[in-house]
Amino acid sequence: MFAVEVRDHMMIAHSLKREVFGPAQGLHGATFVVDAAFFTQDLDDDGLGIDIGLATQVLGDVLKPLNYQNLDDLAMFAGKVTTTEVLAKHLFDAIAAKIAAGELGPGSGRIEKLRITLHESHVARAWYEGAL
Amino acid sequence: MFAVEVRDHMMIAHSLKREVFGPAQGLHGATFVVDAAFFTQDLDDDGLGIDIGLATQVLGDVLKPLNYQNLDDLAMFAGKVTTTEVLAKHLFDAIAAKIAAGELGPGSGRIEKLRITLHESHVARAWYEGAL
Amino acid sequence: MFAVEVRDHMMIAHSLKREVFGPAQGLHGATFVVDAAFFTQDLDDDGLGIDIGLATQVLGDVLKPLNYQNLDDLAMFAGKVTTTEVLAKHLFDAIAAKIAAGELGPGSGRIEKLRITLHESHVARAWYEGAL
Amino acid sequence: MFAVEVRDHMMIAHSLKREVFGPAQGLHGATFVVDAAFFTQDLDDDGLGIDIGLATQVLGDVLKPLNYQNLDDLAMFAGKVTTTEVLAKHLFDAIAAKIAAGELGPGSGRIEKLRITLHESHVARAWYEGAL
Amino acid sequence: MFAVEVRDHMMIAHSLKREVFGPAQGLHGATFVVDAAFFTQDLDDDGLGIDIGLATQVLGDVLKPLNYQNLDDLAMFAGKVTTTEVLAKHLFDAIAAKIAAGELGPGSGRIEKLRITLHESHVARAWYEGAL
Amino acid sequence: MFAVEVRDHMMIAHSLKREVFGPAQGLHGATFVVDAAFFTQDLDDDGLGIDIGLATQVLGDVLKPLNYQNLDDLAMFAGKVTTTEVLAKHLFDAIAAKIAAGELGPGSGRIEKLRITLHESHVARAWYEGAL
Repeated sequence: MFAVEVRDHMMIAHSLKREVFGPAQGLHGATFVVDAAFFTQDLDDDGLGIDIGLATQVLGDVLKPLNYQNLDDLAMFAGKVTTTEVLAKHLFDAIAAKIAAGELGPGSGRIEKLRITLHESHVARAWYEGAL
Repeated sequence: MFAVEVRDHMMIAHSLKREVFGPAQGLHGATFVVDAAFFTQDLDDDGLGIDIGLATQVLGDVLKPLNYQNLDDLAMFAGKVTTTEVLAKHLFDAIAAKIAAGELGPGSGRIEKLRITLHESHVARAWYEGAL
Repeated sequence: MFAVEVRDHMMIAHSLKREVFGPAQGLHGATFVVDAAFFTQDLDDDGLGIDIGLATQVLGDVLKPLNYQNLDDLAMFAGKVTTTEVLAKHLFDAIAAKIAAGELGPGSGRIEKLRITLHESHVARAWYEGAL
Repeated sequence: MFAVEVRDHMMIAHSLKREVFGPAQGLHGATFVVDAAFFTQDLDDDGLGIDIGLATQVLGDVLKPLNYQNLDDLAMFAGKVTTTEVLAKHLFDAIAAKIAAGELGPGSGRIEKLRITLHESHVARAWYEGAL
Repeated sequence: MFAVEVRDHMMIAHSLKREVFGPAQGLHGATFVVDAAFFTQDLDDDGLGIDIGLATQVLGDVLKPLNYQNLDDLAMFAGKVTTTEVLAKHLFDAIAAKIAAGELGPGSGRIEKLRITLHESHVARAWYEGAL
Repeated sequence: MFAVEVRDHMMIAHSLKREVFGPAQGLHGATFVVDAAFFTQDLDDDGLGIDIGLATQVLGDVLKPLNYQNLDDLAMFAGKVTTTEVLAKHLFDAIAAKIAAGELGPGSGRIEKLRITLHESHVARAWYEGAL
């Protein structure tokens, strides 16, 4: 199986208002360096799994509404705890929707699996991976 | 599938006393930067795959008996060759035991898979991944 | 499952002569930092998945005919577009052939899976992974 | 000249309320991976520039009041814009004060220079370096 | 002294046609991950050494004429050997000219020193640093 | 000023037998990823600060007598504590001697400064930098 992975990042504020989070219950923030990996069984006639330019564009597009935001204020996260895992799944769903809409180009339908990894520091990261 | 991965390290001495290891048959050592990845199908009500604080604690706990040691002197490795692969499996088993004992918190039972990666230099690493 | 991964690199010129590649249609180049991961179910009596020295040797051997070359001039890529994905598959096939020929030592037959990752920059990479 | 450098991190929220910051004027956040480098002309009788354990302790101590905070709420930053550069200087001053107080051990007086680097993403960082 | 450093990259082909370069005499290529560090003695009223957005813009601007090119074909390098060092100096001069032209904003005049680092692989890099 | 930096590594055992080292007093070990940076004011007619091939060769040569060794057993370190700083200075002296002997080629005399960095983990490193 082939995979193409591109990287971008976002810088957000949020609070994790549950007892389990200890000091992270207060308003703080994070840089998330985000990797999006697109998996295909085959390559197209141009030797591509996906168009890396479109992949980079789509990753930037889904990060844009979150970047430089306080996630506590965003309607899309109302009632949710915006842990790294939850954000990975949110970005997975957002990119999956764009793939379904054909925004990864003619090869969109070939993408079988997607993995979104969020690096939150030099010692911790989380990811969500799923079939499409 | 979700995964949460945390990082720590240990600095050990050992010798690999088999002919295949060439110069590594003598007493030498390594820094192993160790990643532990915990895989779950779902998140709990707090939006967590696992509690990253407990994950970091447990990784530190299993590294502690090895860190700053000469592995050749440790009873737990008697008769074994402490290659990077063997150490990855050793740490996998040690963390798996802690998961079974509930040390990863109420969500311990949700962990389906575990991967332990040991980076031994900028050009070599090894890992062991298995279901729980 | 165990894995051992080693790293090397190559520096090549090429052109990607299809419209989809935009500015990359012209002659340009890349450094590819290449990781080769060898997967086995078990370890041998020496505690090895594979011999890491042989793995490094074999990776260097398959990179050698490409390193410092203009890929457009190589017969092995005639009629092909040498995308990162295509190169990952090319190196996969080349190492798989060496495994089949026993060049990974007596444990060659134990290798069940292989993954070749090419890092083309700090923001993009691709890989091919397959069973042997 | 010798240098010893240690790494830790902090996760903070803040807003940069000046027109020049564009979208970063709103409340957002960052993970800062922080390196502290301690420079000495000589080593002590134990072969040390500084005690790396104390260095790590002191770095953690100065990060603690900022970690998991909204910097906009902290009295120490009242009237300041908490850019990466300002934070680098803040941490420099905080560690310099601890060095002056002898918290780096008997060798504190030997430290001639200090550099604090804040990595805010995979593509941007800032530092402040000064004599003591 | 303060520094702000930003990162980008370029992918180029070239040949190094002198005997000393051995196999690199032929046409090959490289990805250069490029860091540009801007040094100032002080910060402005907004807490900035330089505007990081402008820094990123200017770095992208000087890379653009080289990116996806065969450097052997560019008039600006006629009669030159485009080693990593030569390219570091070329980019230094190009950014220094933009600083002199005020393209780093009102704070351009405050920049005292500049360093351009080119990472050509995971094991080699070169840089040029100079006063302005 | 120009710099060219190359990377290699060594894996050693040692003990740090002074009270200040706590648990590191016992026999343990480390992987040191080693960077050697060579500084020159000018480039030669081939556009080189130094010959990167020779730099890599010389770095490998000075690491060889230490790699896969127990430093406690080496005569060259008798009576010394082999801290990261001491090892940085040892490697500095060894490479400086080779530069003095002309082993960096005809441009050896142009090297004005040398810096040796030892990365001992993902969170700690030390270096020695000096004029030649």
